[in-house]
Amino acid sequence: MPMLKDPSKKYKKFPPLNLPDRQWPSKTIDKAPRWLATDLRDGNQSLVDPMNGDQKWQYFQMLCELGYKEIEVSFPSASQTDFDFTRRLIETPGAVPDDVWLQVLSPCREDLIRRTVESVKGAKKALIHIYLATSDCFRRIVFGFTEEESIELASRCAALVRSLTKDDPSQSGTEWAFEFSPETFSDTSPEFVVRICEAVKKAWEPTVENPIIFNLPATVEMATPNIYADQIEYFCRHISEREKICVSLHPHNDRGCAVAAAELAQMAGADRVEGCLFGNGERTGNVDLVTLALNLYTQGVSPNIDFSDLNKVIKVVEECNKIEVHPRAPYGGSLVVCAFSGSHQDAIKKGFQMREKEGKTYDDYWQVPYLPLDPKDIGRDYQAVIRVNSQSGKGGAAWIIQQHLHLDLPRGLQVAFAKVVQKMADEKGRELLPTEITELFKSTYFLSSNPRFNIVDYSISPDRSASPAPPAPGKTQDTKNLMRVFEGVIAIDGKEYTLRGRGNGPISSLANALRTVGVDLDVQDYKEHAVGRGREVKAATYIECTASGTEQKVWGVGFHEDVVQSSLIALLSAASNFVLSRQGTPIVPRSIPQRTLSQDLDLNAPDGIVAANGTKTTARVPDIIHALEAKADEM
Amino acid sequence: MPMLKDPSKKYKKFPPLNLPDRQWPSKTIDKAPRWLATDLRDGNQSLVDPMNGDQKWQYFQMLCELGYKEIEVSFPSASQTDFDFTRRLIETPGAVPDDVWLQVLSPCREDLIRRTVESVKGAKKALIHIYLATSDCFRRIVFGFTEEESIELASRCAALVRSLTKDDPSQSGTEWAFEFSPETFSDTSPEFVVRICEAVKKAWEPTVENPIIFNLPATVEMATPNIYADQIEYFCRHISEREKICVSLHPHNDRGCAVAAAELAQMAGADRVEGCLFGNGERTGNVDLVTLALNLYTQGVSPNIDFSDLNKVIKVVEECNKIEVHPRAPYGGSLVVCAFSGSHQDAIKKGFQMREKEGKTYDDYWQVPYLPLDPKDIGRDYQAVIRVNSQSGKGGAAWIIQQHLHLDLPRGLQVAFAKVVQKMADEKGRELLPTEITELFKSTYFLSSNPRFNIVDYSISPDRSASPAPPAPGKTQDTKNLMRVFEGVIAIDGKEYTLRGRGNGPISSLANALRTVGVDLDVQDYKEHAVGRGREVKAATYIECTASGTEQKVWGVGFHEDVVQSSLIALLSAASNFVLSRQGTPIVPRSIPQRTLSQDLDLNAPDGIVAANGTKTTARVPDIIHALEAKADEM
Repeated sequence: MPMLKDPSKKYKKFPPLNLPDRQWPSKTIDKAPRWLATDLRDGNQSLVDPMNGDQKWQYFQMLCELGYKEIEVSFPSASQTDFDFTRRLIETPGAVPDDVWLQVLSPCREDLIRRTVESVKGAKKALIHIYLATSDCFRRIVFGFTEEESIELASRCAALVRSLTKDDPSQSGTEWAFEFSPETFSDTSPEFVVRICEAVKKAWEPTVENPIIFNLPATVEMATPNIYADQIEYFCRHISEREKICVSLHPHNDRGCAVAAAELAQMAGADRVEGCLFGNGERTGNVDLVTLALNLYTQGVSPNIDFSDLNKVIKVVEECNKIEVHPRAPYGGSLVVCAFSGSHQDAIKKGFQMREKEGKTYDDYWQVPYLPLDPKDIGRDYQAVIRVNSQSGKGGAAWIIQQHLHLDLPRGLQVAFAKVVQKMADEKGRELLPTEITELFKSTYFLSSNPRFNIVDYSISPDRSASPAPPAPGKTQDTKNLMRVFEGVIAIDGKEYTLRGRGNGPISSLANALRTVGVDLDVQDYKEHAVGRGREVKAATYIECTASGTEQKVWGVGFHEDVVQSSLIALLSAASNFVLSRQGTPIVPRSIPQRTLSQDLDLNAPDGIVAANGTKTTARVPDIIHALEAKADEM
Repeated sequence: MPMLKDPSKKYKKFPPLNLPDRQWPSKTIDKAPRWLATDLRDGNQSLVDPMNGDQKWQYFQMLCELGYKEIEVSFPSASQTDFDFTRRLIETPGAVPDDVWLQVLSPCREDLIRRTVESVKGAKKALIHIYLATSDCFRRIVFGFTEEESIELASRCAALVRSLTKDDPSQSGTEWAFEFSPETFSDTSPEFVVRICEAVKKAWEPTVENPIIFNLPATVEMATPNIYADQIEYFCRHISEREKICVSLHPHNDRGCAVAAAELAQMAGADRVEGCLFGNGERTGNVDLVTLALNLYTQGVSPNIDFSDLNKVIKVVEECNKIEVHPRAPYGGSLVVCAFSGSHQDAIKKGFQMREKEGKTYDDYWQVPYLPLDPKDIGRDYQAVIRVNSQSGKGGAAWIIQQHLHLDLPRGLQVAFAKVVQKMADEKGRELLPTEITELFKSTYFLSSNPRFNIVDYSISPDRSASPAPPAPGKTQDTKNLMRVFEGVIAIDGKEYTLRGRGNGPISSLANALRTVGVDLDVQDYKEHAVGRGREVKAATYIECTASGTEQKVWGVGFHEDVVQSSLIALLSAASNFVLSRQGTPIVPRSIPQRTLSQDLDLNAPDGIVAANGTKTTARVPDIIHALEAKADEM
C-alpha cells in the first residue's frame, strides 16, 4: 500500500506560535551552556542491551574526565541496578569529583520520589529531577488528568522533594538542587507550561544563587526547530523571577533537527542543555553533545569539554552502548575528515600546503577547504584525511605519495599516476590502502628495481674535444660552457653495455647515449627536489619524455643520494616505461657488443663502443633543464 | 594535548547577516520542494568503495520508483565509469522514464564541459550542472581568482553550455535545463553571489517556463541553520527576475544541522533541495532526503515520494553504499519505532489501545505518544515497536504478551511478570526476544502444563442442602442464590484426588476444596476476558491470591474453551506458584487417600473424600468475582 497521497487528515501541521517580535534570529551563541549528560539514564534505558554496573562506572568516570559537571546517573526507583549504581558512586570515596552534581530522575509519585531521594543520601551535590506529563496528548491518553490536577500534583511533588531534601536538617550535608520537566513541553500549550512552572517554583522557592531548573523537553520532536526556539523564547519572556530560573533544553531528534533545536533555543535564552554523547537515547536519540560542543569550538567558543582524544571517547561509547558511531556522524565519524573526490582532495592538499608555506602553527587561524575543524584538535591524524578510490582524482594519490614517500609530484605526473591508480581501484572495486598506492607508485616507476635498465657506473665529463676556445693565459679552461659527455655502464635486461653520449648536461647526454640502443626519447619536463635534511638528504627527480616524433608520453622517477645519479635513474625509469609500453621491440640491436661485468670502468677509453649520435644532441630539452643540470653539475 | 582553552584565535565566529526584517521565521512549509537526488554523484564519490555499474543501475531504478524526477547521475568528465553509466541509461530503451531529468555535473572548464554535454547526447531531458568556487577561501587557496575573473569564467562557461545545448539545432531532440552552483555559497559574500548569478543568468537567458537553477550549496556547513536561511532569503529578495529562477539548496551536515538548514531555507523561499537517501555524501553527508520527505508527511504535506516500503529502500541503499543506516537515523533506524523504557512502553500501549477503542482506521488522525509517525505508513510492523530489556517496566512485556498470546494482563499481573522478565534480562545481560518473553510467561503461569495441579474432571453444582427456602409453588427452585459445590478430580503431583468444596461460585469452592490439601489461598483479584471470536473463542482468566494470613501474593492464569474451567485452571496455576514458592512443604497430607484414575467421576458421590472446610468458605472474594462468577455460571 503506498503512502497517503494526501496525509493532511492523518497528520496535522504543527501550529506555529504567534511571536512576530521574536528576538532569537538575530542572536548568536557566545558562551557554552551548562551541560547535563544523560547517557547513563536516558541513553542507557534506550539500549537494546543496557550497560552493566562496570560499564556505567567506566562511562561515568569518562564523563567526569571530559569535563561534565552535571550527570544524570540513574532512574533509581525503576531499577535495582540503577539504585545500586547510585549508592556505589556515593559510597566509594573519591568516585565523584567534588564539583560534580549527581542527578536522578523520578516520576511524580510519592513512593518513587522517596526512593529516589534515598538513593542519593549522603551525596555532596544531588539534583532531584521530577517529570510530569503536561501535553494534551499525554494527559488524555496516558493519565486522564485535567490541567488543574496536573498543577496540583506537580506542586505537591515539588513540596515533597523540598521536605525530603533542603528542608530536612538531616540532609544538610548535601547540596540540593531541583529540576522539573513538563512532558512533552514541545507539545504543551506555552501558557499552561508557564502556569505549572510558576506553581512548582512557588512550592520549591528557588534563589538567585541556587536557581530551579525548568527543563523544557522536546520529548518528541514535532516541528521545525525555529518553533522550539519560539517556545523557549516565549517561556523565558513570560516566566516570573527569570533570574532564579535555569532554563534547560532536552531535545530529541525525531525530525533530525535536535542539534539545530538546541542551538536556536540557546539563542532564544536557554541556559542548559541535556543530551548524550553521539546522540544516544530513546528512538532517534537525545541531542548529540559532541556535535554541540565542537560546533561551539569551531566558532571560537570553548565548550568547557575536552574532546582532544575523541577516538578514545568513541571506543568507550561504542563498547558501553553496543551501537557504532556512524561513519558520517559530525566530527566523530570515521569518514568525516576524509575526502575521496578529486577536487576536494586537491583543495585540501592546497590548503595544507598554504598553511605550511605561511608557517602557521597549531593554534593559528584555521582555514582549510572542506575541513571546518583541524583534525589535530580532536586527536586525529592528517594522514587519514585523504583517501583514494576510483572516484578520486590526481590529488588524492599525490597526497598519499607525499605523506608516505615525501615525494612532491609535478602536476603531469600526478595526472599520469592517477590513471594507474584509478585502473587498480576499478579492478579491485574498492578503496585502495595507502600502502597499496605507495607500492603501486614504486613499482610503476621502478623505485625498488628497474626491470630493464640499471646504471652500473658512470662519469659525466666536459667534452674538451669540442672546446670553443682555449683558456686565457693563467686561467684554467672554463668548463661551464662545454658540452658534457656521459660515459658509463648500463645493464640492459641483465647484460652490461658501455654507452657514451654527448649533450648539454647529464640527462641529455644519457638520452643521446640511449638513442644508440634504440631508445629514442625527448625530455619534455623535469623537476627535482631534496628529500630530508642534513646527512640523510636525497634527491628526487621526475622526468617526462615523449617518444621521439610521437605523442606518446612516459614518466620516470629517480631517487638517490647523488643528485646526478638521481636524474640518470629517472631517465632510465622513463626508458623502462617506454620499452614496456612497446612490448616486442628489441632494445639493443644484436650487432652491438656486450661488455662483460666490470667494476673498473675505464673513463679514458676511446670513443664509446657505441658511438654517440651527434646528429641528435639537439633533443628538445627545455631551458629549465639546462639551468637545473648546470646547478646539478655544480653540486 | 587538550583542546584550546580559548579557541577564538584559531576559529572565528561566522558573521551573521544583518537582516532584521527577515520573514522566514513566521513562515511554514506548505508544499514539497522539487527534489534532486544526488546519491549517484555526490553520494557515490564519497564512498570508500564506490558503486559499480550494476549497483548504480539498480539504485537509479529505485530512485525512479520512489518518485524522484531529477537525478544527478554522474560526473562524466571525471570518470569513465560515470560516462559509460550515463550513456547506458540513455541508450537502453525504457531505462529512463519520460518525466525524469538526468543531471550531470562539470567544473567550469571548456574541455570538461564539452565531454559532459557529450555524455547526455540523445537524452529526453538533460540538466547540465556547472560549479565554480566563489568563496574567498576557495578563490584564494585553490584558484587564485579575483571576483571579476570568476564572474567572467562563470558567464563564459554558461554561454558555452548554452551554445552546446539549447542553441545547437542538432541537440533539439533533448529538453535542456541548466544549473549553476557558486561554491561554497554559505561562505561567499551574499552580494557577490547575486552578482555572479546575475551574470550567469544573462548568459543563459532563462524563461519563466524553463527557469535557471541557482543551487546555493552549504558545501561545508559553517554556521547555525538560521544563518543559511538568512542567506537564502537575502538571495531570493535581491536576485532579479525571481520568476525565472529556481532556487536550489544543497546542504551538507558538518554541524549536524543539514535537515534544519534545508527546512528553514525552504521557509526563506527556496524551491528545490538536493540531497541523498539517508544523508550519504562527502564527509558528514548531504542532507537526508528520507528525513526531509517524512518530516513533510508527518506535517500533513505529501512529499510526492513514496517510502511505504522503507525497509526495501534501506536494503538497496546499504548494499550499494556499504554503509549501514544508523539504528537511530530518523524514520529509518531500526531502533526508532522502538521503546524500551517502561513509561514509554506504557504510554504507547495506551495510545494503541485508545486508537483501537475509538475505532480509528489506518488513515484516521494519528496521535500515539512517542510515535510521530504511524509505523505502518513506512511498511513497519507494530510488533517491533515495543522491545524489552532490563530497563523495561511492566508495559513492555505486557505488550508482547498481548501481541503474541492475545492476553490482556491486569495491571497487578503486569507488575508481577515484569519482575520475572527483568530478572531474566539481567541474567542474560541483553534484550529478550518476544519468543523468550512468551515462553517465559507460559512457563511461569503453567499455560502448557502445570507441574503440580491438574484438573481431571469436575462438576459445579448448587448446594441444595443449604437451600435458603423451597421454591414457590409452580416454580423451579431459584439456584442463583444457592452456594456452589465443587466436586472434582485433581491430579496432584501425578496422583489423583477427589476434592470437594463449597463457596459462592466455582473459584471459591475450588479454593475451599484446595484448603483440604493444605493449599490455603485467598483470592484477591480476578479478571477474565474472551480471546478470539465465534467458534474459536476461549476464555482467559487471571487470579491473584494471597497465602492466607500472609502478605505473599501469587498469580495464576487459565486459558480454556470452557470459561469455568479456565477459572479453575487459573486458580490451580496460582496454587502451583504458591507451593513452588514454598519448596519442601508437602502438599497433600499422607493420610489422605489417593483416588485411582477414573473417567467416570461419580458426581453424586457422598460428601467428598476430602471434606470441604466449612469454616473457611468466607474467603475474602471481592464483589466483582461474585458478579463475574454469576455471569460465568449463566454462560
